[in-house]
Amino acid sequence: AAAFDPAEHSHRRRNALTGRWVLVSPHRGKRPWQGRQEAPAVADLPAYDPGCYLCPGNLRVSGERNPDYRGTFVFTNDHAALMPAVPDVPPDAAGDALFSAQAARGTSRVLCFSPDHSRTLPQMDVPAIAGVVDAWCEQSAELGRDYAWVQVFENKGELMGCSQPHPHGQIWATDFVPDEPATEDARQREYFAEHGRPLLADVAAAEEAAGQRVVLRTEHWLAVLPFWATWPFETLVLPRFAVQRLPQLQPAQRADLALLLKRLTTRCDNLFRCPFPYSMGWHGAPFDDRDPAPWQLHAHFYPPLLRSATVRKFMVGFEMLAEAQRDLTPEQAAARLRAQSDVHYLEGEG
Amino acid sequence: AAAFDPAEHSHRRRNALTGRWVLVSPHRGKRPWQGRQEAPAVADLPAYDPGCYLCPGNLRVSGERNPDYRGTFVFTNDHAALMPAVPDVPPDAAGDALFSAQAARGTSRVLCFSPDHSRTLPQMDVPAIAGVVDAWCEQSAELGRDYAWVQVFENKGELMGCSQPHPHGQIWATDFVPDEPATEDARQREYFAEHGRPLLADVAAAEEAAGQRVVLRTEHWLAVLPFWATWPFETLVLPRFAVQRLPQLQPAQRADLALLLKRLTTRCDNLFRCPFPYSMGWHGAPFDDRDPAPWQLHAHFYPPLLRSATVRKFMVGFEMLAEAQRDLTPEQAAARLRAQSDVHYLEGEG
Ligand SMILES: O=P(O)(O)O[C@H]1O[C@H](CO)[C@@H](O)[C@H](O)[C@H]1O
Ligand SMILES: O=P(O)(O)O[C@H]1O[C@H](CO)[C@@H](O)[C@H](O)[C@H]1O
Repeated sequence: AAAFDPAEHSHRRRNALTGRWVLVSPHRGKRPWQGRQEAPAVADLPAYDPGCYLCPGNLRVSGERNPDYRGTFVFTNDHAALMPAVPDVPPDAAGDALFSAQAARGTSRVLCFSPDHSRTLPQMDVPAIAGVVDAWCEQSAELGRDYAWVQVFENKGELMGCSQPHPHGQIWATDFVPDEPATEDARQREYFAEHGRPLLADVAAAEEAAGQRVVLRTEHWLAVLPFWATWPFETLVLPRFAVQRLPQLQPAQRADLALLLKRLTTRCDNLFRCPFPYSMGWHGAPFDDRDPAPWQLHAHFYPPLLRSATVRKFMVGFEMLAEAQRDLTPEQAAARLRAQSDVHYLEGEG
Repeated sequence: AAAFDPAEHSHRRRNALTGRWVLVSPHRGKRPWQGRQEAPAVADLPAYDPGCYLCPGNLRVSGERNPDYRGTFVFTNDHAALMPAVPDVPPDAAGDALFSAQAARGTSRVLCFSPDHSRTLPQMDVPAIAGVVDAWCEQSAELGRDYAWVQVFENKGELMGCSQPHPHGQIWATDFVPDEPATEDARQREYFAEHGRPLLADVAAAEEAAGQRVVLRTEHWLAVLPFWATWPFETLVLPRFAVQRLPQLQPAQRADLALLLKRLTTRCDNLFRCPFPYSMGWHGAPFDDRDPAPWQLHAHFYPPLLRSATVRKFMVGFEMLAEAQRDLTPEQAAARLRAQSDVHYLEGEG
């Protein structure tokens, strides 16, 4: 009988951070694609758009006018999904084993990354990206005083439901630990109880030693295609030092993170020579009274593209009803991102 | 202080079948949408397409020719994600607490619903839909003899990654119980151990009694917008009798299921006057030696549309990184589907 070959044979891998499994079907990358073609994102935008509600000086739907900001700019979402004041769900309506509900309190903010309408993260310079990192840290510190969870994230590209191209992210804070971080919290506490070390510190060390899933490394940070990646080119950004939450990051670690983000997003753009769509966001220890030691701060990048700027992976059918499924191995995807240049394809041509 | 109003105040609801939570932000339905517009699906197709690899008599990429089928037609996927023979993952590579893997064996089949290229489920007549139900039951019985899990599903529409419009579904069988049904399995066993009744039997009875989330009911079946629905118009199809797996369904129950599916998919099409995209599929007790009594057979419909034929809900950013989130209440969505006609918008106009 043939020996097992992960690049040839279907197998499942377990996500140590969530406990969920992903089905890897590497031979399926060969099937032809006759389905939907996405419109490639437009890479050619003006630096200022009078119709954009995020550009400096413009009027928003709320009637407020944006300041003439030069770096980052934060405001409360004009259509916030979360609000600070919500009455309690009355006990009789809060439910039983079948129907259980609870009030959700919080806030939703928008973070403009740059006054320049036309630049995405990889097109910003490293100090400007460091300004975004600082804003992430400050917002987390501020909202973490009032809320148990602060979700810093960015939806980039129309494919990811981003309603407009001005470079921006969001920060949603909640008075509860949401589902996904609660799952990661439980797994990390389990691992810590058993091994006495943070799960993701051990993952980072093991990935650095193995090398095959490393995308890039800077002095303080590591980007890997996780062993259990669900999305074709999903990456995990890990610190190479112990840190539980964004506000703890020191200036040198922030600057170095900006460098890693610049290189990582540049390589992603270069892969299919397009502004690479994704959702990304940060997970750190919840802002509550429990011991944060089992945690390592980390960022997930979830990009949907599979084969080209216009062919995405659909997480549908089997994936929604049974199990996540991918068509190339994480090692193959890592090798492709590793092979990309750190110079952006648009700059390289200039 | 104002009283809690689920149609006004943000809250979270717990999915009793998975243990996951969903954030409900009903006031957010009011925000304007300036983002991506989907191309509406084409509702006007020929009954036979010489270029379609699913139409009767046509040649497939494998070189095989489809028979001149009149009802349903099943074949093994020419680019199957799963294969029956995979060597074991060697113990040293199978991993540890960090990196755990296992071989995945199975098969992937395609099920053509009808020889008519132009008809989707709601446009087929009830006896033809009953033929699809029979095929689901037969395939489950056959594959359940060899595999622990048989996932019957349909991806409908380009939005759901369906690479072609000929009415068809898929059946993937695996020698393991995949992630999502394994989660449902655990929750149903927990509930059964505590209450002595199947979770979904109690849910069906409670939903029938409450009525506010019921979409429609036939003699043997019930379609509800589940209390914990994630997708805007997600529905759950529940039997009104005890049954654990598809092959157990009796002829009268199959015929009545065809009727329910005709009505449910018709109302969905009518909602936005378009072929309503979705992924749907069946969950029943795994084909293993454990007691199937905690299970109730059920189908999930996961449709992505939110506001119109061209505006979908994006499960991105906060949803991927933190928690599923919806912009209207399940009760509001149920009322809208309940208000639709059982006559298809294209027939009504004829
Ligand atoms: O097999 P198909 O229809 O070509 O592919 C579609 O359904 C599969 C099963 O849900 C998914 O894995 C694919 O991403 C999707 O494009
Ligand atoms: O707030 P936005 O950018 O308009 O909306 C986008 O991001 C949100 C948070 O991930 C999602 O809930 C929406 O579905 C998506 O369209």
